[in-house]
Amino acid sequence: MSAKRSKLSEEERKTKLEPLLNDNKWSLDESGRDAIKKQFVFKDFNEAFGFMTRVALKADRMDHHPEWFNVYNKVNITLSSHDVNGISERDISLAQFMDQCAQAYK
Amino acid sequence: MSAKRSKLSEEERKTKLEPLLNDNKWSLDESGRDAIKKQFVFKDFNEAFGFMTRVALKADRMDHHPEWFNVYNKVNITLSSHDVNGISERDISLAQFMDQCAQAYK
Repeated sequence: MSAKRSKLSEEERKTKLEPLLNDNKWSLDESGRDAIKKQFVFKDFNEAFGFMTRVALKADRMDHHPEWFNVYNKVNITLSSHDVNGISERDISLAQFMDQCAQAYK
Repeated sequence: MSAKRSKLSEEERKTKLEPLLNDNKWSLDESGRDAIKKQFVFKDFNEAFGFMTRVALKADRMDHHPEWFNVYNKVNITLSSHDVNGISERDISLAQFMDQCAQAYK
């Protein structure tokens, strides 16, 4: 991954973050922390954990890991970049990858 | 799995639950819900997700799924049996399996 290790600029928030918020059902963390979150709902645990496994391999390769909670068919994700204390391009990339993975189950 | 689909009896809580609480660092959920929880800490994400994958296969086979949160090397687990609204033998079995899996990383 060549994604920059810095917070998104104002311009990048418009061009990269807003599409996720407006079109892909990601939302900003309401606690005030600069992070995005989304709940993915699958048919069952098999689908949910299949999704998590694809994401885990990608995340470890990116060395950028999600905060995630799972119970049965639901996966609640929070993405933020601890090293820059906010949303970076790595979060955008990982979010896009998750959306793409989840699409396979539609 | 032949574990009974009922809440643990008082006798079973003494013989099956207490060893997990006293010797294996599980604790009762402090919100008042009849559930047990534990944090597992691994070397890195690879170990944590390896553990989660073994547990996922076991859980799906048991048709008894954990509530779990992961970030990087930490996995926070909560176990309870929704269908009986409390701790059952299935939670004990899954907790024991998790302890056994985690042992492999010591």
